[in-house]
Amino acid sequence: MSALKNFFSPNSVAVIGASTSPDKLGYAVVRNLVDSGFAKRASVYPINPKADEIIGLKAYPTVMAIPDEVDLAVVVIPYPQVPAAIRECGQKGITAAIIISAGFREAGMEGVEREQELLAVARSYGIRLIGPNCLGVIDTVSLLNASFAAGSPPTGPMAFMSQSGALGTAILDWAQAGQLGLSKFVSLGNKADVNEIDLLEAWGADPSTNVILIYCEELPKGPKFIETARRISKIKPIVAIKSGTTDAGSRAVSSHTGSLAGSEQAYQAAFRQAGVLRAESMEDLFDMARAFAYQPMLKGERIAIITNAGGPGILATDALERSGLSLARLKPETKLKLQQFLPSAASAANPVDVLGDARADRYRFALETVAADPNVDGILVLLTPQAMTEIEAVAHDTVAVAKQVGKPVFGCFMGASKVLAGIEILTKGGVPNYSFPERAALMFSAMARYRQILLRPEPEFASYEVDKARVAKLIERVITEGRNTIGDLESREVLEAYGLPMPRSALARTPDEAVHLASEYGYPVVLKIASPDILHKTDVGGVKVGLRSASDVRDAYELMVMRAQRFVPDARIWGCLVQEMAPAGGLEVLVGMNRDPQFGPLVTFGLGGIYVETLKDVTFRLAPFSKREAADMLGEIRAHALLDGVRGKAGVDKAAILDTLGRIGQLVQDFPQIVELDINPVLVYERGAIAIDMRLVLQSKRKSSVNSHH
Amino acid sequence: MSALKNFFSPNSVAVIGASTSPDKLGYAVVRNLVDSGFAKRASVYPINPKADEIIGLKAYPTVMAIPDEVDLAVVVIPYPQVPAAIRECGQKGITAAIIISAGFREAGMEGVEREQELLAVARSYGIRLIGPNCLGVIDTVSLLNASFAAGSPPTGPMAFMSQSGALGTAILDWAQAGQLGLSKFVSLGNKADVNEIDLLEAWGADPSTNVILIYCEELPKGPKFIETARRISKIKPIVAIKSGTTDAGSRAVSSHTGSLAGSEQAYQAAFRQAGVLRAESMEDLFDMARAFAYQPMLKGERIAIITNAGGPGILATDALERSGLSLARLKPETKLKLQQFLPSAASAANPVDVLGDARADRYRFALETVAADPNVDGILVLLTPQAMTEIEAVAHDTVAVAKQVGKPVFGCFMGASKVLAGIEILTKGGVPNYSFPERAALMFSAMARYRQILLRPEPEFASYEVDKARVAKLIERVITEGRNTIGDLESREVLEAYGLPMPRSALARTPDEAVHLASEYGYPVVLKIASPDILHKTDVGGVKVGLRSASDVRDAYELMVMRAQRFVPDARIWGCLVQEMAPAGGLEVLVGMNRDPQFGPLVTFGLGGIYVETLKDVTFRLAPFSKREAADMLGEIRAHALLDGVRGKAGVDKAAILDTLGRIGQLVQDFPQIVELDINPVLVYERGAIAIDMRLVLQSKRKSSVNSHH
Repeated sequence: MSALKNFFSPNSVAVIGASTSPDKLGYAVVRNLVDSGFAKRASVYPINPKADEIIGLKAYPTVMAIPDEVDLAVVVIPYPQVPAAIRECGQKGITAAIIISAGFREAGMEGVEREQELLAVARSYGIRLIGPNCLGVIDTVSLLNASFAAGSPPTGPMAFMSQSGALGTAILDWAQAGQLGLSKFVSLGNKADVNEIDLLEAWGADPSTNVILIYCEELPKGPKFIETARRISKIKPIVAIKSGTTDAGSRAVSSHTGSLAGSEQAYQAAFRQAGVLRAESMEDLFDMARAFAYQPMLKGERIAIITNAGGPGILATDALERSGLSLARLKPETKLKLQQFLPSAASAANPVDVLGDARADRYRFALETVAADPNVDGILVLLTPQAMTEIEAVAHDTVAVAKQVGKPVFGCFMGASKVLAGIEILTKGGVPNYSFPERAALMFSAMARYRQILLRPEPEFASYEVDKARVAKLIERVITEGRNTIGDLESREVLEAYGLPMPRSALARTPDEAVHLASEYGYPVVLKIASPDILHKTDVGGVKVGLRSASDVRDAYELMVMRAQRFVPDARIWGCLVQEMAPAGGLEVLVGMNRDPQFGPLVTFGLGGIYVETLKDVTFRLAPFSKREAADMLGEIRAHALLDGVRGKAGVDKAAILDTLGRIGQLVQDFPQIVELDINPVLVYERGAIAIDMRLVLQSKRKSSVNSHH
Repeated sequence: MSALKNFFSPNSVAVIGASTSPDKLGYAVVRNLVDSGFAKRASVYPINPKADEIIGLKAYPTVMAIPDEVDLAVVVIPYPQVPAAIRECGQKGITAAIIISAGFREAGMEGVEREQELLAVARSYGIRLIGPNCLGVIDTVSLLNASFAAGSPPTGPMAFMSQSGALGTAILDWAQAGQLGLSKFVSLGNKADVNEIDLLEAWGADPSTNVILIYCEELPKGPKFIETARRISKIKPIVAIKSGTTDAGSRAVSSHTGSLAGSEQAYQAAFRQAGVLRAESMEDLFDMARAFAYQPMLKGERIAIITNAGGPGILATDALERSGLSLARLKPETKLKLQQFLPSAASAANPVDVLGDARADRYRFALETVAADPNVDGILVLLTPQAMTEIEAVAHDTVAVAKQVGKPVFGCFMGASKVLAGIEILTKGGVPNYSFPERAALMFSAMARYRQILLRPEPEFASYEVDKARVAKLIERVITEGRNTIGDLESREVLEAYGLPMPRSALARTPDEAVHLASEYGYPVVLKIASPDILHKTDVGGVKVGLRSASDVRDAYELMVMRAQRFVPDARIWGCLVQEMAPAGGLEVLVGMNRDPQFGPLVTFGLGGIYVETLKDVTFRLAPFSKREAADMLGEIRAHALLDGVRGKAGVDKAAILDTLGRIGQLVQDFPQIVELDINPVLVYERGAIAIDMRLVLQSKRKSSVNSHH
């Protein structure tokens, strides 16, 4: 918290651009600082050369004129004056500034330059910035409301950071209506300096926050974000919604933020590896926020449902099962006890149906009995407003049981006006109510996902002995030659240096040499044209498999060279590569990498052939990934059963696949110059795996780094 | 409507079991008939032998004592007295009765008998029944409220039928809070007589209903439901939520309703074929209800978004794209006009961002300009409550534009208290507001799905010339022999009779005959043991492929018969089947059928081998299915690209697959005795398809019809 302390609990705040005119943002900020009660417990200095006082606070012409120390500046002046104001803050010794003013990166190329200038000034004085182009900062514990939002939200355990200020206004309105309680709210704006990573660090250590919520459109420092979130998510849940996940959405983000979008696959991998719970929608974000903020963590995956209506109970059951949870099997003594008290038509099995005419006593008995069952990890209380239903009493009892049981309890009181008072009792008592059974069920599923995150062991990263220098030299040579792709022979060198088994292979410069190599390897062999200028070898007849004799090899060599020269007259032809045939019966898998502009090396795994081409059955992780994450990849592809063997076939050597993934992960981290790489196929056998073909693309010197990623 | 007219707009109603005691259901029903205003415009006769009047209405001791004709009886007496009461209704000439009383099918075996008795009495007098065990019936047009619900919902264009009365109470509460407007509400209870099919017919013709909503747990008359819904869904949208779709949920339904659950796959196929829009959750149902009830149908799939905040605009864009819709490309003149009026920082491309400081004039201009663009089929108006936002004025303008434009318009005014007044204006003006951008986007997707239903041509059902009598005879013979599975030879007969190509094949009774047949077909051939007592031929070494010579055939024949006799000593051995080898290179597909207890023959299609076994990549239709539906199946499997040819392979003969599907569809309709069938594989070539192996199971005589389905 220390680095950002002055943003949240400063002892004194200067509002640069404070205004006496109620329709100005510079007035709204001072108003909020006064109305929130902050001005009573700390010093607020409106800065305005033309005013003596603003909303009862003495105004100063400049920050330099303030007699005391200032911890935080809030800047609400037109953009041309901002850099000078920040310089003055520096001179005054201010170390934190919230820049509300717009007109920076979001306003096109000139704005980008302005933002860089602003940042340079701030850095030169050691000032941290939030914004520019933001709504401001709210801390409901210190009472700071340094924003132009309409009022302050109620306090609560959720901390929210939003890249969109506008969305922030909606969130604050929901909060003010009593639906969310916030500890902190930060509108991040253009994120010139302070970003999600800084706030994760700060809020991870904040005792008044127990769930961290993020709305983001891009995360430029991807690897650092993952590293930080991976740590903080072990302390408290982080729930994020990322917009711009589709092509159209990502175009909208780019035009909105001017930033280069990372790929959806990279975000998916990043959130998963970082332990960030991803919300599917705004609704999902809010629902999860309430679940995590107010209820204890789920300690198992067995859920009990208590209901006064069969139908909604079944809907909840369906939703639980669909999301991978299970209905708790109640202990025999629990069932017996329920049977003794409940009417005979009631269901004593889960879902426990207390029947439509249940009054509060029946609900309470069922609740207490079920809550005491050690087979139950979480409880959903469903209620429909029927003639006899004592809605408020049931709500009170639910709250009472929830407070004692140490297991998460959610309400689903269905309806509107009739159940309103009951829902308010639940909400005040810290039992989130969801309007529909399916949504309540989904929240148990979110909690189960977080439980898995908490259970994850510390990641272990494999490290392999490799010949890094050899690859470095090779890459240097290729780049010196002005190429950005590497050929078959060079690929072999890379694979060899990183310890990846390949079929034996060597370059033959003449047909005689080819025949000699072939007899050394044993027939049949493969022949491939060797040229740095021919990438798509098959297109020019440059690959011939299954050559069974010396004369086959000789004929193929001569034909291949002749054809290559005809198709690509200027090609440098080194000769032909003679390659051992890989044994039959291997399973084709693919290991690939694309470098994501925001997150770095995104490694792909899948089965080869039609599985990748037609079924797109692949999965992704960002390097570095742990051993466990690599192992998870193998289980995630839809056709994973093929790895274990089907239709009488034996399973393949998974350890060999993991080894390949690990070594490739290391390679693409060692060489950021590699922007794309595919080994397709790797043939995997009952024992061992062989890399057959690799394609590798280096960052082109001629293009800008932005274009080469696209 | 005519058949059920008396349930909805009777001129006179008798309440059998009317009570003077306010805590009795028999009081609540009379109360509702009075409070709804119904008793003022029609006659209501409380039946209670001990009372003179109830809530100001003259009471009668029996229905027979009523001096006038009675159109509808509402029965709220203990179950033992219900049959006698219905008998009396019959004597009085009443033709419609709502049985609120419980204690029938839902109460176990005795209840089932009671329900059958009740139904028999009703049938003998030609009385139609709703219930028993239901909440009652409400018609907001005729003002009839023949239910014990707490009050009447506001009127509107949605008609709701619910198998769960309890869920009904929640729905009515939502409606009363102004969120839904209902034309009719029916709690179907046990559905002893009137069911979803009757109400679909009635409401399809009801001018005050424009969307039909269904909550169901089971649909016993599946084929009839499909036939009816297929017709009515062309008139108005039908939205259904089915609970009990997972294993646990379906167990809960069975214990709740005592009925045999149909499979999830069958429901999925049924709803799709019937043109019923399936709601994923209660929330989805309500959201769709509001969309269809109040907005015109979508005529294309190009949606425009107008927003005062970038973030939510991107979330909506993502959701639109994910659900298969597209952002409208605005015409150049539209963009130009927007650019001229909007500030330069605004986005004149879709999503149209009018910026955070937009007042109503900017929204209105953008709305009108976008609405006039012929490239726009639907409009989403997003609003976040920012400092300058004129929420109510924007709401009024949105309603005004929506009323004129003839395209669906939805609101997404985000927040709570600040936007409340705006949302009320939208709701009153018939523009549904969704709290979150993703949900609003989903509603366009639901509308696009309904558009596809409206665009579906009349289904064409193929009819093939087949030799039905031959199969009938064969099945009779098999059943007579006490078997319920049929062997290879018999399968061939069935396939032949239904015109499905197979490899040539015939029975050889001796090795010599086998050699003779083989030389006739040409080598290689396949040999299979022919015995009605050996189903799993491979297990006893009873299949040998690729026999290349006369001596191969002779050896295989003798070995096979010897082994079969050793493994299954009592087996009747007819000899060996000699079969032509199918040409190499065919694509393996699977055509199968399982008879669903509720919907009948559920036909499966998929690719064979690991695609079905490992990837479960299959799709389903209920027979009868149209030619178009069969064609849709081919496109639905994930690996459908394999049918078109991948990796240099030619595509396969889709017409031949469709022919197989059609003929099998006809077979399983012609013979309800067939409960399971699999042709796996069918080999499909560039031209033609050959059925290689069929497994067929008949309904066993020894088991009850219920068990044999499981």
